[in-house]
Amino acid sequence: MIIIMHPQVTDAEINGVKDKLKSLGLESNISRGVERTIIGAIGDERKIHKESLQALAGVEDVIRVVKPYKIVAREWHKADTVINIKGIPVGGKTIQIIGGPCSVETQAQMDLAAQGVEQAGCRLIRGGAFKPRTSPYSFQGKGVEGLKIFRQAADKYNLPIVTELMDVRHLDAFLEHGVDVIQIGTRNMQNFDLLKEVGKIHTPVILKRGLCATLSEWLMSAEYIAAGGNHNIILCERGVRSFEKAYRNMLDVTAIPVLKKETHLPVIVDPSHAGGKAWLVPTLSKAAIAAGADGLLVEMHPQPCDAWCDADQALTPDELKDLVGDLRGIAQAVGRII
Amino acid sequence: MIIIMHPQVTDAEINGVKDKLKSLGLESNISRGVERTIIGAIGDERKIHKESLQALAGVEDVIRVVKPYKIVAREWHKADTVINIKGIPVGGKTIQIIGGPCSVETQAQMDLAAQGVEQAGCRLIRGGAFKPRTSPYSFQGKGVEGLKIFRQAADKYNLPIVTELMDVRHLDAFLEHGVDVIQIGTRNMQNFDLLKEVGKIHTPVILKRGLCATLSEWLMSAEYIAAGGNHNIILCERGVRSFEKAYRNMLDVTAIPVLKKETHLPVIVDPSHAGGKAWLVPTLSKAAIAAGADGLLVEMHPQPCDAWCDADQALTPDELKDLVGDLRGIAQAVGRII
Amino acid sequence: MIIIMHPQVTDAEINGVKDKLKSLGLESNISRGVERTIIGAIGDERKIHKESLQALAGVEDVIRVVKPYKIVAREWHKADTVINIKGIPVGGKTIQIIGGPCSVETQAQMDLAAQGVEQAGCRLIRGGAFKPRTSPYSFQGKGVEGLKIFRQAADKYNLPIVTELMDVRHLDAFLEHGVDVIQIGTRNMQNFDLLKEVGKIHTPVILKRGLCATLSEWLMSAEYIAAGGNHNIILCERGVRSFEKAYRNMLDVTAIPVLKKETHLPVIVDPSHAGGKAWLVPTLSKAAIAAGADGLLVEMHPQPCDAWCDADQALTPDELKDLVGDLRGIAQAVGRII
Amino acid sequence: MIIIMHPQVTDAEINGVKDKLKSLGLESNISRGVERTIIGAIGDERKIHKESLQALAGVEDVIRVVKPYKIVAREWHKADTVINIKGIPVGGKTIQIIGGPCSVETQAQMDLAAQGVEQAGCRLIRGGAFKPRTSPYSFQGKGVEGLKIFRQAADKYNLPIVTELMDVRHLDAFLEHGVDVIQIGTRNMQNFDLLKEVGKIHTPVILKRGLCATLSEWLMSAEYIAAGGNHNIILCERGVRSFEKAYRNMLDVTAIPVLKKETHLPVIVDPSHAGGKAWLVPTLSKAAIAAGADGLLVEMHPQPCDAWCDADQALTPDELKDLVGDLRGIAQAVGRII
Repeated sequence: MIIIMHPQVTDAEINGVKDKLKSLGLESNISRGVERTIIGAIGDERKIHKESLQALAGVEDVIRVVKPYKIVAREWHKADTVINIKGIPVGGKTIQIIGGPCSVETQAQMDLAAQGVEQAGCRLIRGGAFKPRTSPYSFQGKGVEGLKIFRQAADKYNLPIVTELMDVRHLDAFLEHGVDVIQIGTRNMQNFDLLKEVGKIHTPVILKRGLCATLSEWLMSAEYIAAGGNHNIILCERGVRSFEKAYRNMLDVTAIPVLKKETHLPVIVDPSHAGGKAWLVPTLSKAAIAAGADGLLVEMHPQPCDAWCDADQALTPDELKDLVGDLRGIAQAVGRII
Repeated sequence: MIIIMHPQVTDAEINGVKDKLKSLGLESNISRGVERTIIGAIGDERKIHKESLQALAGVEDVIRVVKPYKIVAREWHKADTVINIKGIPVGGKTIQIIGGPCSVETQAQMDLAAQGVEQAGCRLIRGGAFKPRTSPYSFQGKGVEGLKIFRQAADKYNLPIVTELMDVRHLDAFLEHGVDVIQIGTRNMQNFDLLKEVGKIHTPVILKRGLCATLSEWLMSAEYIAAGGNHNIILCERGVRSFEKAYRNMLDVTAIPVLKKETHLPVIVDPSHAGGKAWLVPTLSKAAIAAGADGLLVEMHPQPCDAWCDADQALTPDELKDLVGDLRGIAQAVGRII
Repeated sequence: MIIIMHPQVTDAEINGVKDKLKSLGLESNISRGVERTIIGAIGDERKIHKESLQALAGVEDVIRVVKPYKIVAREWHKADTVINIKGIPVGGKTIQIIGGPCSVETQAQMDLAAQGVEQAGCRLIRGGAFKPRTSPYSFQGKGVEGLKIFRQAADKYNLPIVTELMDVRHLDAFLEHGVDVIQIGTRNMQNFDLLKEVGKIHTPVILKRGLCATLSEWLMSAEYIAAGGNHNIILCERGVRSFEKAYRNMLDVTAIPVLKKETHLPVIVDPSHAGGKAWLVPTLSKAAIAAGADGLLVEMHPQPCDAWCDADQALTPDELKDLVGDLRGIAQAVGRII
Repeated sequence: MIIIMHPQVTDAEINGVKDKLKSLGLESNISRGVERTIIGAIGDERKIHKESLQALAGVEDVIRVVKPYKIVAREWHKADTVINIKGIPVGGKTIQIIGGPCSVETQAQMDLAAQGVEQAGCRLIRGGAFKPRTSPYSFQGKGVEGLKIFRQAADKYNLPIVTELMDVRHLDAFLEHGVDVIQIGTRNMQNFDLLKEVGKIHTPVILKRGLCATLSEWLMSAEYIAAGGNHNIILCERGVRSFEKAYRNMLDVTAIPVLKKETHLPVIVDPSHAGGKAWLVPTLSKAAIAAGADGLLVEMHPQPCDAWCDADQALTPDELKDLVGDLRGIAQAVGRII
């Protein structure tokens, strides 16, 4: 922690900061510059709040030196984490493309979806049984019945399933129906009670980035899960909110290399929610793989026009198959396989 | 709903849209312009998803004509809603300033806080027993014990209490300890399961704006609560995320008049979390009242420097008292009283 | 300047930084912490580029300690600057409301505008002869002829004129027609050649904030003007770009107290361009004055519906008069007069 | 143009809109819905201002149907524009990587830079003689002398030169020294007088996106240049401002496919200014090419650590050469060559 003092700081104020640091178990290094005096706090700053120092007399600014996250930090765990989902690795050399519909609708729809996912060459399937919808009047998902339908369809093709958990009270049902990967959605990235609950189990978690979450906040949310004991965390970039109106969200490709530097966790990308349009999905997928993503989360629906939600952003089964094919060249160019 | 067709639209595509609208119970009005053909959908568009029309052949864009919210809309309920909290009105001519600490720490701290709130002339007290913290290593709140401490301190001064609910599993404890106003925090504005639960009771709810929520999304979250039957909703603007680094969040004063036009619900402002610094609170409070806010949510701590969280943004009891005094002139200038 | 070194920094890397600092005329203070070594650079950091240090081996981050601006900084000039515009002070106890149309159209329109401004009790008039328009097909302003019309109308009522300069080649015409205050618009806030030119003269300058300029960048643009010798600078907040679609720009009221702390220059607000709608102007004006603004720049047009640009954001002469009256109470509540 | 009327609209108000449209040469189509009446304006809406309709009585909202730009729109010019720069095509199958230093410093530096650019396999060189710097105390560029140095170095290797124009008064010098491509920088994207001047000549122009410009505003700035007669326009995405603090700007890869749909102009990307760090350049370059960019603008300096500006974002000559090599695989995967 670095404490920058006001220009007209007094010795009493400097001593006040030193005393506070001492009471927190930190040493002080005083550096008197031409225009400012700076106090370096030596010791473990991670449990100290900037705010309690910022409120002291004579303090102009307080700057953290170390990152607030630890378990998820690359600094403390050099090797890439590879997560094993029923034998399918996420995070290593192989790129995983997770396909499937926005929401579970019917058994027939899910059977076709699973078939399409398998035929496209994908190894995991996604689908929502509980849906976070902006409007209370929109379809809210099939609930537990949806989990059953999903499980049954996926099992025919031996596909592990990925589905979103919105409410801690549903966790038992998720475990009962053997959900293979729990998705924590954008709107729940900082639902800390939910994060703590999935931190207590060992099911892999896909943690989506909040709509305007900084990378640091996102990693802190991952740290919540990790601090509970569950280190099987996959980060999913899905576009952030911006001023631009020509498309839905702004896919933050820069986040991929920066995360790869900051954390050992796998990073995947959701091009469907990022762009919000099916026609944008192939291009955004290519950019994501080229930027080093470990996988994709792609919406596919047997009949997009009849989808109960997000009809205009789902690929058809054929389009998904074509996309997987098209991505192989990009993957190869960055030393990966699909 | 207005459907704008592509420049080279065919009659078959136009008929496709007409058929789809018919199947949804809407009539069509076709307007052939010089460069585009436009189809107006006549009927109740509220339950129709733009996306299902956007996915149709020949469609370039789909625009909603009516707002997606109804119960909370001023259009359907002209008069201002005034919420009665144990006899204290929120939303009418009187401006309510809700003071209190970020978090409940000890009985002594809360007793002093309640005394300070009462002496400042405030009629409601805030305090957090469950705290949403970015870091898993930060103080997470005293929990249910905090509710007891809070209740006891507030009862001495006859102050209704406002406290944040983060987890549906805590709702029973909230009701048991007679929480007077439930706060739904920024990070939970779109925690739809939580919104549904507080929609089932009648306890007034302060719904804070999400970090980058649009006014429309925010009103849709209010609609979630209202749709469940609880119309006692207070909106709380608390600053939004921006590119600016000189202060924490950007207080959106423009939101106040726009909300007042769009909804009949009371609108209050949290100047403490907006600016993130105690010294900014008086100025932002004045701006908020001048812009038409129905109240404020202000952090005050008996000893800010020793606060367990957000130490640098809490006012002292004396500063709160001065603030309330200073605001009377502004209130009067806009035809209100404090 | 504080230089934070990488966790595994070597002595050679530390010496590399020390040598670089020495070559730049700065001393070093080394502070070896538990997880990081920090180097404090002692001396005048203002002319040193962070980037040249950031590129050195072993450097993780470089943080400035002092602000990059000096002439405009409150730290170096404690008293508020009051600018004298033909005897009318901007920046002191009196709040100045500058009214007038978006663009100069005809002599009759400007005569009526000037009359309306004077009757409303305003002491300065605004109007655009050169207009920055997003579209090349929109009305681009009357040019030099507009300056003449404007001058003539304003002189009848003894009103100093404020008008926008977009092109260095027009500066001579501005001086010739005795423009009293030169406005530098949002899109030109970082048109550095233009800033340098207005820095060479002594005509007061209203410098509008860029659409997404940070306060620091804005003050650096003011420093450009000041560095040339012209210290008669008025900052004008006019709303920034945000994700919100319910109104045009987000008025940043927090900027007002933060600027007042950082700089001694007067700060005014343009509520018309901020909200983008005439009905929002009175509320935003009140918020601005309550937040400490030294003045307002308000669009008024004799016949808003016939205005050649921004028709929906101009007040009528009567509305401007009412607004000035309504603002007196707010001004008084914050110890100012209008 | 679609005009949405207020819920309680009167016949007189509807007639008012019809009359206004008629006076502007447009026909009306009235569609009376359940909750709103909508008026479709039939005719060329491009020269009509939304604002003048929005100010009419009874009008709730006005929505444009056609895009405001025309010459640059793909709708009116289907084929990709390929710009010929001394025989080097920008915009076709071949991807062009334009390398070179941030600023022209010395003849020796530029000679080495040109050699490095040529050896890396690039066909165009960039360098700044006039530099837009946030601080007036930073190096402002070598000016006209820099143009001479640049020309001489580039001619040795037969490389066309790209350099930034900031001030209309320098245009003659640019033409005199045979600048091959004029760059209009981010801060001047809406410097309309500058756009008009480069619209009058035929030298190709690289138009960088403003820091928070929407795609529509950017295309309108291109339309300014095109409307003057110069259709040799290359758009350059360089990252936009966001809330994220972990890197400098957010590279908007989604802009690439959206622009490709909206316009026939070539689109290149500047990964150096986007990420702001040399180590991010290769990854962002790959993402850009994968997303369909027609080229890159990459900072390279013979000795990055000694660069007079942006030292931490320049590649070395060897790194540029490696990058060009690495990009060939990505280019091939998307059907392009380098």
